[in-house]
Amino acid sequence: MEDLQTLFSPRSVALVGIPRTFKIGTLFLMALKDQGFPGPIYPVNPNATEIEGLRAYPCVADLPDPVDMVIVMVPRTRVMDVLEDCARKKVKSVILYTSGYGESGEREGLDEQERLKEIARKGGFRLLGPNCMGVHSSSAGLAFFPEMPRESGSVGLISQSGSLCNLLMKAFEPRKLFFRHAVSYGNGCDVDLPELLEWMGRQPDIRLICAYTEGVRDGRALARAMESIAGRKPLIMWKVGRTAAGQRAAASHTGSLSGDEELWKALFQQHGVLDVSDLEEMMDLVMAMHYLPWEGEGRIVLVSGPGGPVVSAADAAERWGLTMASLEEGTRERLKAILPATGTSYRNPVDVGLSASFALNLYLDTLQALTEDRNVDAIVVLGGGISDETNQVYKDGLVRIRKGTDKPLIAVAYPGFAQLESWLEPLCGAGIPVYPTPERALRAYARMKQFIDFRDHRAGVKTLKSA
Amino acid sequence: MEDLQTLFSPRSVALVGIPRTFKIGTLFLMALKDQGFPGPIYPVNPNATEIEGLRAYPCVADLPDPVDMVIVMVPRTRVMDVLEDCARKKVKSVILYTSGYGESGEREGLDEQERLKEIARKGGFRLLGPNCMGVHSSSAGLAFFPEMPRESGSVGLISQSGSLCNLLMKAFEPRKLFFRHAVSYGNGCDVDLPELLEWMGRQPDIRLICAYTEGVRDGRALARAMESIAGRKPLIMWKVGRTAAGQRAAASHTGSLSGDEELWKALFQQHGVLDVSDLEEMMDLVMAMHYLPWEGEGRIVLVSGPGGPVVSAADAAERWGLTMASLEEGTRERLKAILPATGTSYRNPVDVGLSASFALNLYLDTLQALTEDRNVDAIVVLGGGISDETNQVYKDGLVRIRKGTDKPLIAVAYPGFAQLESWLEPLCGAGIPVYPTPERALRAYARMKQFIDFRDHRAGVKTLKSA
Repeated sequence: MEDLQTLFSPRSVALVGIPRTFKIGTLFLMALKDQGFPGPIYPVNPNATEIEGLRAYPCVADLPDPVDMVIVMVPRTRVMDVLEDCARKKVKSVILYTSGYGESGEREGLDEQERLKEIARKGGFRLLGPNCMGVHSSSAGLAFFPEMPRESGSVGLISQSGSLCNLLMKAFEPRKLFFRHAVSYGNGCDVDLPELLEWMGRQPDIRLICAYTEGVRDGRALARAMESIAGRKPLIMWKVGRTAAGQRAAASHTGSLSGDEELWKALFQQHGVLDVSDLEEMMDLVMAMHYLPWEGEGRIVLVSGPGGPVVSAADAAERWGLTMASLEEGTRERLKAILPATGTSYRNPVDVGLSASFALNLYLDTLQALTEDRNVDAIVVLGGGISDETNQVYKDGLVRIRKGTDKPLIAVAYPGFAQLESWLEPLCGAGIPVYPTPERALRAYARMKQFIDFRDHRAGVKTLKSA
Repeated sequence: MEDLQTLFSPRSVALVGIPRTFKIGTLFLMALKDQGFPGPIYPVNPNATEIEGLRAYPCVADLPDPVDMVIVMVPRTRVMDVLEDCARKKVKSVILYTSGYGESGEREGLDEQERLKEIARKGGFRLLGPNCMGVHSSSAGLAFFPEMPRESGSVGLISQSGSLCNLLMKAFEPRKLFFRHAVSYGNGCDVDLPELLEWMGRQPDIRLICAYTEGVRDGRALARAMESIAGRKPLIMWKVGRTAAGQRAAASHTGSLSGDEELWKALFQQHGVLDVSDLEEMMDLVMAMHYLPWEGEGRIVLVSGPGGPVVSAADAAERWGLTMASLEEGTRERLKAILPATGTSYRNPVDVGLSASFALNLYLDTLQALTEDRNVDAIVVLGGGISDETNQVYKDGLVRIRKGTDKPLIAVAYPGFAQLESWLEPLCGAGIPVYPTPERALRAYARMKQFIDFRDHRAGVKTLKSA
């Protein structure tokens, strides 16, 4: 399986079918230059001698040196010839952007897709796609588009949809959350989800894996891949095509057979896969897994100035199987000394009262006291000031408190109260995840706890077996 | 019940316990001035002769004229005397901000709350609170705080929590959605949820009602109130205290008894109440009810450039009981002429392909064609340009298309693709609600459909009975 390595860190790349003048296809070349791809880049176009300042070649056979990776974006009628050329040139991997294969729903497209795979197998190269957007890996200088994140993180992303892969990376960027490798595998005729999962599972620099999939060919291979990472690395999976309508949509998007819903559910449960069903749920959970320690009993404390939202949050906590922490007697005494006597509550949820939006130390002293409470595993705080100035005091205070404790702090930038977008960078940068509502924060925390429990249970079973 | 009217449109207001120098309490006076309250405002403070440029009076008895509404924010120990003064002065309504009553959980607070109610009943005035933030009604010049929305809309808001009431108004403002009347009723010892509901149900300028509640004293009165608006005005209700943890939180917030969960569920079902469980769900649904026509069979079409998100959306549509529209043959032909042959789909979900982010007419021509399809009840579009300039073309195009059709258009500003905040004003302003994900758009649309079905079913039953 080592041959997947060249997909994520090729030493040289050729782009076949790159437009002579600026069109969408040009972006794929600009993307490599934008990320500073360190090796040679060969534009291939029979009608050009130079593209974007690089010498162009008429065909793959004419390339002056061996090439690791070829990105193919020629029309479908010419794909077969280019792939034969790639085989002769002994390239190691091909990324095929061209679409119109399995997802067309027509016999011809399906047959051709089968033949692509055969050429790849016989030619000794790996084929990613067709109908995909390839690989993004800043550390290797690969990107989907120009102006994509340049930082490299510890998350692995596998997405059948190319544009979703791209959108997820952009949505994560303001959350200071970056991907080590991201791959869009489209119709997955050769390199498919199971192999990608297993490969990412073996990369020491990937801590957690996110996947978006519409279906898979080889269910057994998928089960094996899940088993290989189960309890070791969290796998957050957004599986679509779960209803008749979704299955039809998936078939025309990537030609996927979505498979039996019950089977998928069983797979997820058996391997502790964290099943999500939209982008927000995925984003929320990745943030929790990235920023919070994978430990604790899930005893949370809620802190708020506005009272209403945390009553609802207490409901959410219980619904999600979390425990509302019982504060230590000493903490309650401390809160009594910090907070006004009326319009506040020294119990969980802690209500710091209306005046805390003016006197920010009511929030901050309360949080400091709670970080020292041994009955608390995590603190969710819904607060802020009434002006830019007081908001700055609040945010700075949260960062300072977070620095002085190992206890996870989770901030809520509630609609009407705080501007989520402007809180992300300073808080996420300090290791404090930010959510728009306490309900979403708690859902994410509870799902993380689910991974912890699965992992610990599995470790316990293993220990028992070995005893 | 006419006496509630003075709560929402008093001709004069006195503020008792207003601070002499600037403190939080001052904001409540500034709020009235900020909204241009048209009648006389009387600050009452025995230690001041003038507050914020207005002549101050030592006590209620000394006020020169009859007073409709008195807002009371004195410490709890002085409340009883002030209320007796109000009775003697024959005021019509009192809003009591002071807290420390039923929600304290202590005998003394509970007893005092009962006595407050007695004074109000005997004194012939209505009492809102204690532990509340009063009334916001721009048309009457009433507000919770300064710098609140000044526009008046067609939504009624009843919230037990004052700060939540305030936050909801602020969260709705960028969505161009305004409230006719908003009321925070706190512990609700006299004026309680059922009466407020019924009153709002009778206001011709209120089209839909939102409520946040932690519990209610008189379940029968609530059932009657719900019955009085059932099928006539949508009621969106966020009921909290639905778990043991939430019930404890509600008790210490407003002293509410949350009541039996099953009973609430039955009430909701019987009266077609739209039950929501967090601020986002409430906001999403209010947007749908406000911007979309209350009709149609719920046949939706999804349009997108990025393919992945709409496969998931198709799942969501089916899960929420909506129908994916079957496009007319003529529409499919039109789409075939508009869109490129590969990387697109002419069926629902309609995939306009990657290049639509550059060539915005691919989106706009597609949408135009879909507005004319008789099999389509609503269009959900996930799109945008790749730059500020192309985004502007896209937004302008959506507004133009919306103007030329009765068909509802729903925009998705997907994370990583579009800036939700900057889309709200231009699109909502043109009657196009905006959601961050298609899943949330569809959930809101489906809940709206639920109201339509309930209303029509009820009308059908009535027709049958009268036949």
